[in-house]
Amino acid sequence: MKLNILGCHSATPRTNTNPTSQVLEIKNHMFLIDCGEGTQVQLRRNKIKFSRIKHIFISHLHGDHYFGLIGLVNTFSLLSRETELHIYGPKGLKEVIMLQMKLSKGWTKYPLIFHELTSKHSELIFEDDKVEVHTIPLNHRIYTNGFLFIEKPNDRKLDINAVVEANIDKAYYNKLKQGFDVKNEDGILIDHKKVTWEANPVKSYAFCSDTVYDESIIPLIKNVTVLYHESTFLEKNEALCKETKHSTAKHAATIAKKAEVDTLILGHFSTRYNGYKGFKTEAKAVFNNVLLAKDGISFEF
Amino acid sequence: MKLNILGCHSATPRTNTNPTSQVLEIKNHMFLIDCGEGTQVQLRRNKIKFSRIKHIFISHLHGDHYFGLIGLVNTFSLLSRETELHIYGPKGLKEVIMLQMKLSKGWTKYPLIFHELTSKHSELIFEDDKVEVHTIPLNHRIYTNGFLFIEKPNDRKLDINAVVEANIDKAYYNKLKQGFDVKNEDGILIDHKKVTWEANPVKSYAFCSDTVYDESIIPLIKNVTVLYHESTFLEKNEALCKETKHSTAKHAATIAKKAEVDTLILGHFSTRYNGYKGFKTEAKAVFNNVLLAKDGISFEF
Repeated sequence: MKLNILGCHSATPRTNTNPTSQVLEIKNHMFLIDCGEGTQVQLRRNKIKFSRIKHIFISHLHGDHYFGLIGLVNTFSLLSRETELHIYGPKGLKEVIMLQMKLSKGWTKYPLIFHELTSKHSELIFEDDKVEVHTIPLNHRIYTNGFLFIEKPNDRKLDINAVVEANIDKAYYNKLKQGFDVKNEDGILIDHKKVTWEANPVKSYAFCSDTVYDESIIPLIKNVTVLYHESTFLEKNEALCKETKHSTAKHAATIAKKAEVDTLILGHFSTRYNGYKGFKTEAKAVFNNVLLAKDGISFEF
Repeated sequence: MKLNILGCHSATPRTNTNPTSQVLEIKNHMFLIDCGEGTQVQLRRNKIKFSRIKHIFISHLHGDHYFGLIGLVNTFSLLSRETELHIYGPKGLKEVIMLQMKLSKGWTKYPLIFHELTSKHSELIFEDDKVEVHTIPLNHRIYTNGFLFIEKPNDRKLDINAVVEANIDKAYYNKLKQGFDVKNEDGILIDHKKVTWEANPVKSYAFCSDTVYDESIIPLIKNVTVLYHESTFLEKNEALCKETKHSTAKHAATIAKKAEVDTLILGHFSTRYNGYKGFKTEAKAVFNNVLLAKDGISFEF
């Protein structure tokens, strides 16, 4: 699982800071999460292959999370894309994109499929045989969802010497990997645990931006491998959180601790600060395993 | 008169090329012309004071000419702008901007005034005591206007020794500067040309992008100081002009020659080419005074 941070700053794009956008590589998928202005240039700068993106998840309709989407949709057309593009985001997003395409008289040549979100409860919005994606309802000034990406349980790993030794027909190998006991050629039931190793643990990623401190998300993100939680402000500006419905680094760390996640990544930094060390310091006072997002860097888990 | 090129490339923003946007400084105005994605970052990069922009002119509703507008409008709000912002552009632009503001629940705190254009004939769209702005109807795939910026005639310059010598009351100085003959203290009519110098010549700038080769614009841009004319293609790709309704460098130069302009600036280059010298060579074969636009440079006239 690899997370590429294209932008992790709030409000406005600037010379050296980009608004929210990231690409999660998980089980051969390349999921684009949020798409602030300039995302397509950030994709180029970070040498991420545009064409591999088939699913885009938009958290909410504040500009710093989606103003780059129309440009990307348009560029896909100019690049003669033919494969489907699925866009998941709040109701209204389709209207914005379609209106601009209508005015330009330039429809996409590829299938563009909108999945508009309106539910205030977590829902499963994408699923295949490898991954599930669920919404995480967040508490912000307008309708907002975070997204939870979970790998499906991996198969157990075959101990090839053991299965041969146990005289099991190859036709049963998949059953064993899936955790079933099977009979061998001699009619004896073989415990799958004796001829397979534990599956690789499943990984999961929860993206939570933008939101005020809200413990109601904790059951949804319990024990995730990686939590990205916004931390727009430092504690000295905590008063701004209530009005703007954002969080501090301490808030993010408290959620991470209570949800018992492995790793917390902080992002969505207000551009009012010079440097971001303060965010790490304040979060680490509550929760130890803290990373800072930075435009253009990647994390592997 | 100063022209700042923020972006002069067609189609998509890339790591080192920006879509169309430029700032014309003329008679203390700062006019923003087109606003492709990333324009606000280009404004910052080129150290242009955002707050001085009060008028934005959008040629047409292809993304590479306006996808950065919503972000700029939004950023003006975040920067607590209070002064009026006037936006001139094709019908539909207001709907796009207003829809996105409605969805974000974030109205501007400053007056945002749209001037939607629908006429197929040149019209005067802005005028004060210093400058006029007229549309230049262009011939592109969708409804498109270029813009003609013309200084109003300057006053003649007073020859202070001559007016004192001629015994003219100060009350008549403005009349003289405006080109009227006046009577002096002795009742003698004084020829204004004898006591004033020629006014500075008026300057004018014509922005013509995007358009196929079309001689119908020539009367509108006759004798302008500077013509910016798109040259998306080189001659070897001229066949593409008909389909895409764009021009070659030679087309642009032919228009410049026939309109007898002082200086031609080429821009809106297709990103298919490596380097832009070919554009200059091809244009100079027809018209001598050719400049190439380049992102981040300025021209003074």
